[in-house]
Amino acid sequence: MKNFIAVTLMLLAGASAFAQQALGPGTGIVSPQINPDHTVTFRYENRKAVTVQITGDFLPAKTLEFQNEGRTVRLDVPGTVDMTEQNGVWSYTSAPLEGELYSYSFIVDGKKVTDPSNIYMNRDIATWTNIFTLSAEQGDKGWYYEVHDVPHGNVSKVWYDSPTLGLKRRMTVYTPAEYESNPKAKYPVLYLLHGSGGDEDAWSDLGRTIQIMDNLIAEGKAEPMIVVMPNGVYFNQAAPGAAVNMFQPTMANSRSQSTVEIEQSFPDIIKYIESHYRVRKGMADRAVAGLSMGGRQSSALSRAYPKMFGYVGMFSGVVPPQGEFDQQLADVFAAKPKLYWIGCGKTDGVMQNSLLLKDYCQQKGYPVTFYESEGGHIWRNWRVYMTIFAQQLFK
Amino acid sequence: MKNFIAVTLMLLAGASAFAQQALGPGTGIVSPQINPDHTVTFRYENRKAVTVQITGDFLPAKTLEFQNEGRTVRLDVPGTVDMTEQNGVWSYTSAPLEGELYSYSFIVDGKKVTDPSNIYMNRDIATWTNIFTLSAEQGDKGWYYEVHDVPHGNVSKVWYDSPTLGLKRRMTVYTPAEYESNPKAKYPVLYLLHGSGGDEDAWSDLGRTIQIMDNLIAEGKAEPMIVVMPNGVYFNQAAPGAAVNMFQPTMANSRSQSTVEIEQSFPDIIKYIESHYRVRKGMADRAVAGLSMGGRQSSALSRAYPKMFGYVGMFSGVVPPQGEFDQQLADVFAAKPKLYWIGCGKTDGVMQNSLLLKDYCQQKGYPVTFYESEGGHIWRNWRVYMTIFAQQLFK
Repeated sequence: MKNFIAVTLMLLAGASAFAQQALGPGTGIVSPQINPDHTVTFRYENRKAVTVQITGDFLPAKTLEFQNEGRTVRLDVPGTVDMTEQNGVWSYTSAPLEGELYSYSFIVDGKKVTDPSNIYMNRDIATWTNIFTLSAEQGDKGWYYEVHDVPHGNVSKVWYDSPTLGLKRRMTVYTPAEYESNPKAKYPVLYLLHGSGGDEDAWSDLGRTIQIMDNLIAEGKAEPMIVVMPNGVYFNQAAPGAAVNMFQPTMANSRSQSTVEIEQSFPDIIKYIESHYRVRKGMADRAVAGLSMGGRQSSALSRAYPKMFGYVGMFSGVVPPQGEFDQQLADVFAAKPKLYWIGCGKTDGVMQNSLLLKDYCQQKGYPVTFYESEGGHIWRNWRVYMTIFAQQLFK
Repeated sequence: MKNFIAVTLMLLAGASAFAQQALGPGTGIVSPQINPDHTVTFRYENRKAVTVQITGDFLPAKTLEFQNEGRTVRLDVPGTVDMTEQNGVWSYTSAPLEGELYSYSFIVDGKKVTDPSNIYMNRDIATWTNIFTLSAEQGDKGWYYEVHDVPHGNVSKVWYDSPTLGLKRRMTVYTPAEYESNPKAKYPVLYLLHGSGGDEDAWSDLGRTIQIMDNLIAEGKAEPMIVVMPNGVYFNQAAPGAAVNMFQPTMANSRSQSTVEIEQSFPDIIKYIESHYRVRKGMADRAVAGLSMGGRQSSALSRAYPKMFGYVGMFSGVVPPQGEFDQQLADVFAAKPKLYWIGCGKTDGVMQNSLLLKDYCQQKGYPVTFYESEGGHIWRNWRVYMTIFAQQLFK
């Protein structure tokens, strides 16, 4: 026991000079454990807890209905099951799972906690959950979200000047692996926009964009491209941790209903990218896409600059036909975009508007691609949409 | 209550389209709250817990003694105090604190959990803890670790080829803010090495290197420089999350006792940096420093390449005089390094070897700078050493 305490303390303190023996993980417990049959076993040590449950998006979802501003809203939330205890260790083994990125938490006597045996976590707005990926076979969804032994692109957090907004602002830039080895080649650019509550880290962290692009490019399924992930909240400079003050993000403080400021300031982003990176310029080599708020922004940007983007992607976020839409969309399609792509989940509240836009385009004879998935307004869908959309760009 | 559930669920699901009202943080609780007198209040809601404690490095440390391989080891660990409960919310207010980056966790009925109201966390090897920074006045330690409204440098995660190790490997590169605005200027380079259990993310995340450099350069206290933070474990390609497989890091799987491979392969790193960045080449414009294992590597690199680095920093990590040391150190000092810097904490187990090296250098008449701090083998000291060391480079 004394030795166990010593080892634990050394791990906590990072007291490397003292640790000579091979050390196990900090908790001495393996969780999650992905089994050969693709079931997953979770373990959590707690001798005093009365009940321990696990909640995760691999469990059958519960659909909750509630009223919000006079509308009935249905929302899928991860299911919850009891874990069983033996010698102070609570455990649960899932059903066999398909390849995917999964998230989960434990619920100890009613309070959510993270799994101390699993260092992998994602933050979505103000909530941290543990994650793991599982690939049942090469090329399934989970496989694209994992790091494989393929050439890796670089990822930079860069600060650019936005004179329009009067701010220096931060964004994430992915350059494909071959950008380094082909020093004269020029590349097309996908501008990829996050949703409310998100920031310039969202698509790389929650969205697995780096892994998706590395893997798609390595397989020859996507063209080598630069992916630019800016901060879509016009009054913020940067994500928590890179911004002045340690603010706690909420939907409220990371939200901008208006798309006007993003429309007006977006040329500042394009100017920085096209002057700092080797890029092909022109409509055929620019794409814009986003999720939720970022989908509405992509719609607005394509209408504000109809000759700017040859590819437009709206993931669970559209602006329904309204107001000056007739002329604006006529201008968009007069410029002959190569792809005008709408993706939405069947139970997503955005589905109604997505269908309105699709029907409007079809009535007008505008070529539109509509992708309907299962599920709702969740990252699992946005990763899938990104994986599909990226394969159709710049070909 | 129904509305509260709805709001909570929407936050969890990122269901931005539905949330119209201003939303508070996910838990509805403010923690930590930094008060005007620099005390800090922590809050945690749990109606079923019997005891809730807080453990943090702002509490008086406990010194533990234990035996390890026949030696008596003393280790400072964060103190623990009870929190008090009112209406289901446990709270604790600290004494007034000096400017610093602090870490803490809650202990609920004996089990450590993170603070669900605070999104800011650091991972040290396999342990996540909450963090916060506090600056009592401009220019105190905490101030340097915070993001301020100063020009910000860019941070890149780049992959380089190490033919010596037969691996593509990842490293973190900081370029100062003016690197972008002075497109012809060339910059000196600090190579900054992490300790056992660490990786190429350690100095930027735990070490606050980005903030320290931005702030020191903005104040004119440090020269604009590039800081290169490679992965110091020769058999690893990258940090968890960027590496193949979701491995759980331990001291064991992120540890390399031998410095030979790092010595042999380090020219691969320098070659990449000097061919991909605008850098000044030559001993006067290269520094190497590291903590713990990285300090031993810095010692080894300076001895292997005595004319490579004009500045050498060993933070809580030295190689004591032994073996071929006489000739090697004679070569190091024959090349007249501008700075040979040793930093160590009074209660650090490395102090004995640090003093041996200092005394050896002084007996030989080699100019050496020795910095003794309070405390032990902890990140708090390494951030301070980095802040001091960086101000002495390239002047």
